[in-house]
Amino acid sequence: MSLAQIQRIMNARSVAIYGASDDISKWGGGLMHQLRRHGWQGKIFPINRKEFVQGQKAYLDIGSIPEPVDLACVAVPVDQVGRVIGECADVGVAACLIISSNFAEAGEDGLRRQEELVEIASARGTRLLGPNCMGLMNTHAQFNLCNSASSEYYDHTPSGPIGIASQSGALMGTMLARSYTCGIGLSSGISVGNQADLEVADFFEYLIDDENTRIICLYIEEMRSPERFRELAQRSIAAGKPVLLVKAGRSEGGAHAVQSHTGSLAGTHESLAAVCHQLGVVLLDDVIDMIDIAMAWVSVGDWSEGGVAVATASGGGGALAMDALDAAGFSLPTLGASTQAALGRWAPPTHLQLPLDVGVLASHNPPRDLPQGILESLKAVMADDAVGAGIYVMTTQKNAQACWEAVIETAKTCGKPYVFVNQSSEVGSAASRAMREASLLEVTSLTSATTVLGGLRDIHRALTLPQRTAAVPPLDASVAALLPAEDGEPVTISEAETKAMLAAAGLPVPRQAMARDADEASRIAQEIGFPVVLKIDATGVTHKSDMGGVAVNLTTDSAVRAAFKSIAAAAERHLQPGQMQGCLVQQMVPGDVELIVGARWDAQFGTMVVVGVGGTLVELLHDVQILPAPFTREEVLPQLQRLKLYPLLTGYRGARPVDLDRLVDTVCRIGDFAASLGPRLLEFDANPVRISGSNICIADARAVIR
Amino acid sequence: MSLAQIQRIMNARSVAIYGASDDISKWGGGLMHQLRRHGWQGKIFPINRKEFVQGQKAYLDIGSIPEPVDLACVAVPVDQVGRVIGECADVGVAACLIISSNFAEAGEDGLRRQEELVEIASARGTRLLGPNCMGLMNTHAQFNLCNSASSEYYDHTPSGPIGIASQSGALMGTMLARSYTCGIGLSSGISVGNQADLEVADFFEYLIDDENTRIICLYIEEMRSPERFRELAQRSIAAGKPVLLVKAGRSEGGAHAVQSHTGSLAGTHESLAAVCHQLGVVLLDDVIDMIDIAMAWVSVGDWSEGGVAVATASGGGGALAMDALDAAGFSLPTLGASTQAALGRWAPPTHLQLPLDVGVLASHNPPRDLPQGILESLKAVMADDAVGAGIYVMTTQKNAQACWEAVIETAKTCGKPYVFVNQSSEVGSAASRAMREASLLEVTSLTSATTVLGGLRDIHRALTLPQRTAAVPPLDASVAALLPAEDGEPVTISEAETKAMLAAAGLPVPRQAMARDADEASRIAQEIGFPVVLKIDATGVTHKSDMGGVAVNLTTDSAVRAAFKSIAAAAERHLQPGQMQGCLVQQMVPGDVELIVGARWDAQFGTMVVVGVGGTLVELLHDVQILPAPFTREEVLPQLQRLKLYPLLTGYRGARPVDLDRLVDTVCRIGDFAASLGPRLLEFDANPVRISGSNICIADARAVIR
Repeated sequence: MSLAQIQRIMNARSVAIYGASDDISKWGGGLMHQLRRHGWQGKIFPINRKEFVQGQKAYLDIGSIPEPVDLACVAVPVDQVGRVIGECADVGVAACLIISSNFAEAGEDGLRRQEELVEIASARGTRLLGPNCMGLMNTHAQFNLCNSASSEYYDHTPSGPIGIASQSGALMGTMLARSYTCGIGLSSGISVGNQADLEVADFFEYLIDDENTRIICLYIEEMRSPERFRELAQRSIAAGKPVLLVKAGRSEGGAHAVQSHTGSLAGTHESLAAVCHQLGVVLLDDVIDMIDIAMAWVSVGDWSEGGVAVATASGGGGALAMDALDAAGFSLPTLGASTQAALGRWAPPTHLQLPLDVGVLASHNPPRDLPQGILESLKAVMADDAVGAGIYVMTTQKNAQACWEAVIETAKTCGKPYVFVNQSSEVGSAASRAMREASLLEVTSLTSATTVLGGLRDIHRALTLPQRTAAVPPLDASVAALLPAEDGEPVTISEAETKAMLAAAGLPVPRQAMARDADEASRIAQEIGFPVVLKIDATGVTHKSDMGGVAVNLTTDSAVRAAFKSIAAAAERHLQPGQMQGCLVQQMVPGDVELIVGARWDAQFGTMVVVGVGGTLVELLHDVQILPAPFTREEVLPQLQRLKLYPLLTGYRGARPVDLDRLVDTVCRIGDFAASLGPRLLEFDANPVRISGSNICIADARAVIR
Repeated sequence: MSLAQIQRIMNARSVAIYGASDDISKWGGGLMHQLRRHGWQGKIFPINRKEFVQGQKAYLDIGSIPEPVDLACVAVPVDQVGRVIGECADVGVAACLIISSNFAEAGEDGLRRQEELVEIASARGTRLLGPNCMGLMNTHAQFNLCNSASSEYYDHTPSGPIGIASQSGALMGTMLARSYTCGIGLSSGISVGNQADLEVADFFEYLIDDENTRIICLYIEEMRSPERFRELAQRSIAAGKPVLLVKAGRSEGGAHAVQSHTGSLAGTHESLAAVCHQLGVVLLDDVIDMIDIAMAWVSVGDWSEGGVAVATASGGGGALAMDALDAAGFSLPTLGASTQAALGRWAPPTHLQLPLDVGVLASHNPPRDLPQGILESLKAVMADDAVGAGIYVMTTQKNAQACWEAVIETAKTCGKPYVFVNQSSEVGSAASRAMREASLLEVTSLTSATTVLGGLRDIHRALTLPQRTAAVPPLDASVAALLPAEDGEPVTISEAETKAMLAAAGLPVPRQAMARDADEASRIAQEIGFPVVLKIDATGVTHKSDMGGVAVNLTTDSAVRAAFKSIAAAAERHLQPGQMQGCLVQQMVPGDVELIVGARWDAQFGTMVVVGVGGTLVELLHDVQILPAPFTREEVLPQLQRLKLYPLLTGYRGARPVDLDRLVDTVCRIGDFAASLGPRLLEFDANPVRISGSNICIADARAVIR
């Protein structure tokens, strides 16, 4: 439904412009000017009381236009927008692009005004883009209806394979300027502004369908429909179109800035990052990095397995590049014998390894042979099986032209990613021009180079991820029977209740029972078998051990009785009378290692399972990984391996290793348990999960149910 | 001694050029050409068989020159360099600058050739710069004796306050190109090459003394004289001249690249980082970052306490900037009431907080007032007490000129650092030109902006560090008496021996004694008092508990006897007969928290003390800080606070806090102990140091003594 409408917008054959004027410094005048200047072949209908605008016949209102209009562009004062949209809807315009601002981004009054627009439009079947947006472009139709400073700067609209949908018009213009500066074009660019009606996801869908688009860049401040985003991302990647995303509002300050900008609330960044990792969406911090990665992918191709080969004319530049690559986690390849033999034609025996030093080639070869020597050496290095990608670091250097020409030829033919790092500022401006003419990305810092290489690696991972198969399992009837009544309020349920639910879901919990006095505790301990643990059961107490409410490793009847009395005494000191219900008597679970497995309902992305190793230190170290649930067994182990404390699971310093197969299974089942409860499970902690070989048991747990 | 010689080199009035020719693409010809072209007023004596070189009278050899020569420049084939240097030395030339390469960087033969040069020169009192270097420049004398591509590109040598000494000529040229591109000049630049004689430190000293230099940038591959580097860094910072450093060879690959480049070995990066932190040297990864920070400091001034204020025309750009600043650890200030009142003249009430959105100013004010509004708003924000620095993020935007003009005016007058981030690529080229004309730094990414702000913050810290007072204490006679005989070989000494030395140094160790059998163990335990710990004493066993060689919390005589037998049985299973000497019986030390305090002799920087919290996990987490010893009490606490697990010391989750004063004292005394042993203490581990309130005790320790 939306898709067909958006295709009509993006391929509009007629556009009416409310606010069109002869003054091209005004929004409406500027838009009309850009549209004509960039060579669009469609029909433009300026709407103005004058007879002519920019030399073209003007109309008093949209009703006076004698032909159907695909798209109306609205750049009028805020109090007239509602009327204009009504007029447009009356004559069956497909969509209104609202440039005017002062809506949701300007507080509550503005939000009300914006809601009124949506009402007017949706009642009559017209779609809205904006308000507070900067327009759109479809370069393959020379359709540049975008009033950004970039559109003003360029007098044509180079087309290319990169599609952009952005909540910020300025950042769309920024990406456009960066891509044109590198001689690479966009397919489409859409600034969606406040997303009163049509949103980023609608244009995301369009770009997936658009045959001119090979890679998609999204800038989002508010993720309006996370479920749809997930679906579209999977669809796009399955179709071989990588998805890159910048999401603003990571910090509190950034979220505040976003709020004042488009009236939207930021989601939780960690959950988003986990979802992106799961789907293969490449999540980035900056739009320039995003467009750089997209440009690298369309110009130099997909990531190859292997290390990154450095070439440079400067020993120092090479050393710093190796340091930067190593710090960013890239391997530094060792060249094979046949590559060394090929290099041996041009380099002395002392210089047959990386970094390839073209300064050495220059002193080793006569000037007339040097260009050939550089080219053949670069190509020999890139042909080595151990080499997955290359970078050339250009400091201020001799023989620069021979080098950049060899880089261009190598990048175009080697079939592996090749990144050109020009660190020579204006001294290297001729190289910049040459790279631009060759439509190859140029970056100016090692940081950018490693970011681009990292992005290419992530894209490769995305395109080779297995198809996702995990589905939300149905809620088990025996678990459902234990849920508190559904009244919308969150309730913290006790350890005993939580464990009963876990047991009903088939998860491993210790043998246990509640004791109201020392006699009962003694009887239960004998039933369970020694050693046991006693834990206070008292409403509102979460950190039980901090108040003296826990006694462990009780091996005798008398120890159990003494512990119960001591806990009761602690309760008398610290709690209200009657707050203590009794003590949970529990089998003492052996454990070489302790895990925390938690779950949280994220308002945007649903159930998030958190896994960490190491007991109480987890909270200090933030050494956790997030798995959006449901997930498959295959997803769990790579996440565990990303934990700093992962070695504790594999037999650290002579300790017994954990049965990883069983552990993965337990984490999956906890994920299914949490996912099956959906939004009812607000928070859940299994902490610690104690593991001793293949013995896995949830020693303590709590939950907040809604 | 060196200083006067280097002053004569840098202010040379006459230069002889071996290898001078009419072909300016050759090294000697190029050097002569640059020197003339950049307007140097001194005398140039080309040395060549021809009568004239580049139109100037040439000489057959240096002896034929009728005047004294300050500096001889040597750009001749490698096999002639020795002879040339001999000639120069014979006539009393102060120094030879050797451009020729193929010395230490080219393997062992080259190293031998290089050593011969040094012999020839030092025997006759001539100093050498290089070989394998690119030359030097003193811009205040238009003295550009540097054949880099940068010198070729520019036909003049802008002077400025930034001094550079670099082991890499290409990277010096790269920094020079970057600074001139920003309209900021250097004072001096020296490429030292292989440092056969004169080294980076010599020119570092010169730059400290040079009144034209306000800030010093060093690029080093091999730290030739670390002690001198330390002294000079302290002297420079004390004189108010910040020191920035890039040290290549951090990674294994980078170190390899360094080695092949100048025949030098890389030191340990972590020790260097600790030394830099201690002295206030700003250690960086990249030379462009280094020169950017230097330019920011000379152009916008010293860091102010407070948060970083963001201004931009783009809501999205502002949000991403806030995210980037937050992630880099900068605070985002809240504007005070008077600032909001000042902003209220230009902005609507919804937009009186940061980021300052000039897009909103544009829609809120008539165009003719806008430039004034932007300028006053920027100034008002920067005058706020909560604001310590500012950045303007320029996306592709309307009213760009009004904005960059306001930024220039604000940066020049506000007295706080201001960074201009131009993200608009070629669309923003007019802004780049304006910034250059104003001699203000422009960066193109948020990453660079936060790096520059971080550098300014570090420079401010350096310039306000207290004067260092710690000195290496003398070796205590009672400790010295316990040292093994000095035969140059490293010896691992036992726990008992190590603790005896610690006790002699007045450090807290548990009561303990060695038992050869169970009876003796029982007797000692009764003397010490229960509970005790038994630990195997066996040569070559370091991880005692992994082999069953430790028994803790022994509370009775029979438990001690049983434990001894069990350890002896473990020794029988795991060790050679006779390897077990007995068991150490030791007072059981209480501990709420465990620390590791180690020391290591670093071949470059001497004694390094390593501190970490958390027992065995320390090794997995690498959560340690390094303190170069000796150090003062004042240095210890800030380092402890940089540990991720620092909260464990201050009473985490209801635990008893550690007596930090006592702890700092103990760490200091361990530092003094290690420093007093100097190079004889190769390695030392106090692990764990157990702490319970103000009770601190080194429960286990080992050392490697030479």
